[in-house]
Amino acid sequence: MAANQRHYILIETIKRLLRRGSYSRLKKIISKVHAADLSTIFPTLSATNQRRLYRLIDNPEQQAIVLSELDEDIALSIIEDLSIDEITTIIENMASDDAAAIIKLLPPEQTDQVITRLRKIGEDVEGLLKYSDDTAGGIMITDFLALREGMTAGEVISTLQSKEYKDIEMPFYIYVVDRQDHLVGVCSLRQLVLVPPSTPLRNLMSSDVISVTTEMDQEEVAKIVARYNFLAVPVVDQENRMVGLVTVDDVIDIFREEATEDILKMAGVGEEFVETKSVYRSTRIRIPWLFASCVGGIIAFFIIGHFEDSLRKVSYLAAFIPVIMGMGGNVGIQSSTIVVRGLATGRILIHDLWRVVSKELAIGLILGAFYGLLVGLLAQYQFSVSGLTIAVCIGLLTSMSVAALVGSLLPMLFARVNIDPAVATGPFVTTAIDILSVYFYFQLATLLLGI
Amino acid sequence: MAANQRHYILIETIKRLLRRGSYSRLKKIISKVHAADLSTIFPTLSATNQRRLYRLIDNPEQQAIVLSELDEDIALSIIEDLSIDEITTIIENMASDDAAAIIKLLPPEQTDQVITRLRKIGEDVEGLLKYSDDTAGGIMITDFLALREGMTAGEVISTLQSKEYKDIEMPFYIYVVDRQDHLVGVCSLRQLVLVPPSTPLRNLMSSDVISVTTEMDQEEVAKIVARYNFLAVPVVDQENRMVGLVTVDDVIDIFREEATEDILKMAGVGEEFVETKSVYRSTRIRIPWLFASCVGGIIAFFIIGHFEDSLRKVSYLAAFIPVIMGMGGNVGIQSSTIVVRGLATGRILIHDLWRVVSKELAIGLILGAFYGLLVGLLAQYQFSVSGLTIAVCIGLLTSMSVAALVGSLLPMLFARVNIDPAVATGPFVTTAIDILSVYFYFQLATLLLGI
Repeated sequence: MAANQRHYILIETIKRLLRRGSYSRLKKIISKVHAADLSTIFPTLSATNQRRLYRLIDNPEQQAIVLSELDEDIALSIIEDLSIDEITTIIENMASDDAAAIIKLLPPEQTDQVITRLRKIGEDVEGLLKYSDDTAGGIMITDFLALREGMTAGEVISTLQSKEYKDIEMPFYIYVVDRQDHLVGVCSLRQLVLVPPSTPLRNLMSSDVISVTTEMDQEEVAKIVARYNFLAVPVVDQENRMVGLVTVDDVIDIFREEATEDILKMAGVGEEFVETKSVYRSTRIRIPWLFASCVGGIIAFFIIGHFEDSLRKVSYLAAFIPVIMGMGGNVGIQSSTIVVRGLATGRILIHDLWRVVSKELAIGLILGAFYGLLVGLLAQYQFSVSGLTIAVCIGLLTSMSVAALVGSLLPMLFARVNIDPAVATGPFVTTAIDILSVYFYFQLATLLLGI
Repeated sequence: MAANQRHYILIETIKRLLRRGSYSRLKKIISKVHAADLSTIFPTLSATNQRRLYRLIDNPEQQAIVLSELDEDIALSIIEDLSIDEITTIIENMASDDAAAIIKLLPPEQTDQVITRLRKIGEDVEGLLKYSDDTAGGIMITDFLALREGMTAGEVISTLQSKEYKDIEMPFYIYVVDRQDHLVGVCSLRQLVLVPPSTPLRNLMSSDVISVTTEMDQEEVAKIVARYNFLAVPVVDQENRMVGLVTVDDVIDIFREEATEDILKMAGVGEEFVETKSVYRSTRIRIPWLFASCVGGIIAFFIIGHFEDSLRKVSYLAAFIPVIMGMGGNVGIQSSTIVVRGLATGRILIHDLWRVVSKELAIGLILGAFYGLLVGLLAQYQFSVSGLTIAVCIGLLTSMSVAALVGSLLPMLFARVNIDPAVATGPFVTTAIDILSVYFYFQLATLLLGI
């Protein structure tokens, strides 16, 4: 809580100084605040103040870190306010993966100008741009340290000390390559200082090096880094030549991003976080998802309309609609959430379809029997019409077990055919279950009550 | 996909060999498989095979890693099968945070025996046991490297080379302490090799060191490590004495765990992942959450029962129940999901209550007006009863805007009073909204239709 409190005070101070226009005091504060802290303030400001605050950052490295930590829409709005020269300088100061991400954000005409200038000063940003966003190639940094197997420990240490390598990020592992740049081994910086300086890398490296390929999905890359507790994993091309490095800080971002994406998709609010966006944009993102649920509601309307005669005769039939719909919907959400999260964390394997689905179905049947009896007793107590009691009882049992079945089967099938299982959850599953439940309940009641 | 495929083949091979009882071949395979890969196989096996497979692991370090990576219930079942001596040896080979976690799992009588034996061989596990699970103290490792500020770079390197420190995990930062063990600075292993060996730590360290206290919540710790892209963060006691270290691999686990917890809580399936548990346990965990929804359904039943007279006169009133309940429920889930995830990722600040809630309310009103008109038009087209049309229209508008209001307000208020906002989502919000929606719709319709 203390950290939050400090953070809040910082935000309030910056907002107050922005209101007052005390720019010189602001500059002084900004120069002392860590770039990572500074970036968390932007989402709480208006677009004008975001641009104003960004202009007050003097240090190009701080500018680079702040920009790369911001959400896409905020970054884009700030970039619109900058000249091509300013953008180029900021990108020059970025890690190669962040640079690629920012270049991909730029409007097409600016992209070319920026790339031309970067090429002039000898930066290789183009290399990164050829990989798609969500792959190892798209998130890797290209400033890594790969040395030849014949080099000695002493030579490696002098290399590290040379100015040329001062921009290398986190050189905690030394990757070892052969003459054709094929990745052949890895050793830690620590091993390096533990051996006599004349030892060649070949003799101290471990040749059991785990790498990922440029086109591997970023989520897979993240899982590998997490599984082996790595600080970084080397990225190789088709020929096993090392071309980059994915670091653990990016892996953390990937996990957080993917969890957010899954959660938002399950709730039917798109993929990206919309809170920072305008009311208009938030509304537009949510409308289509709700449309599915609206269509479902309208179908249920027609189903109930179809049974209007029965309803006229036995009006209290309607009173059980909420409990049957609600219970089915909730069991469906439970089952699909467990499957979606289980697949994401690796606790459920895609090949275990029948084991997972049959287990969920068993749970749905037990829960359905339990609550079917409970609500059935209520129906019997209130109305003493055995046909209704049985209809309510079996209606709930069916609704809840079908919900468990559909809720677990759909995401498993989606995952099999490589569709994101998270989209199978939320509005779609609930809506499908609502329709099935209502239909089945009315059909059964009409039949049993002979109406 | 290739990695998954390999993984699947490994699992199938191990299962086949377990079935056949080819233990010598299994032993050979196990000795070559990375402990991290091995641990992912356990959840797919029966309890008997889990114990059997674990017994085939020869290497005590591999035993230690596998056990610490397993889910609590699997780990517990394996431990039950081991002798006190075996448990002690395994714990001895674990990192201190994992050792503490396993000791906490043991039944009370075994705990004492294991602690006594560990104390005999000079392990300090008790130090860790005094902190609660979800704090920095509970997850830190206590084997860290903290050196005196007067030491020279050369001396530090020789220290690293000494046998005593061979068990230190990831010594990528050298923490610097004064004579009273107060944390005063930090320097990287890299800086160490870049300066003349006679430079004292005092002159090369950065004194701007960010630390966390033992009682800080693990989620806060994880956020700090992520914000600054640290590989580890030092843990200090009340007097700023360094007592441990939280490493980035644990931070990844925390984020994944907390995301899973939030997702499961929102769906009303407890906190822990239940897929690996038995049908009986899964059912027991889900029953109480569904009870909330059942009580809600029964309340809705009585509300509708209260309007039975109106229903008997205008039976098609019932046909709009699903769409009004469904739309309200979905908007509520959308709003609460955005707030819960926003709070978890720091995109929404706890202090911004009114800004967040009023924005969600505005979105709820717009969405409600849109869908209210849409469904209202359908009602008008079908029944041409203006009272009903208005009731449906305003019913949807109210249901959706109240849902957005309650869905965003509840988690914000919960977060303010330090209750996990994720429990405010899911069944409870939906149930509350269902009841309000149905009641308001019937009240309005009865009034407007004069029935």
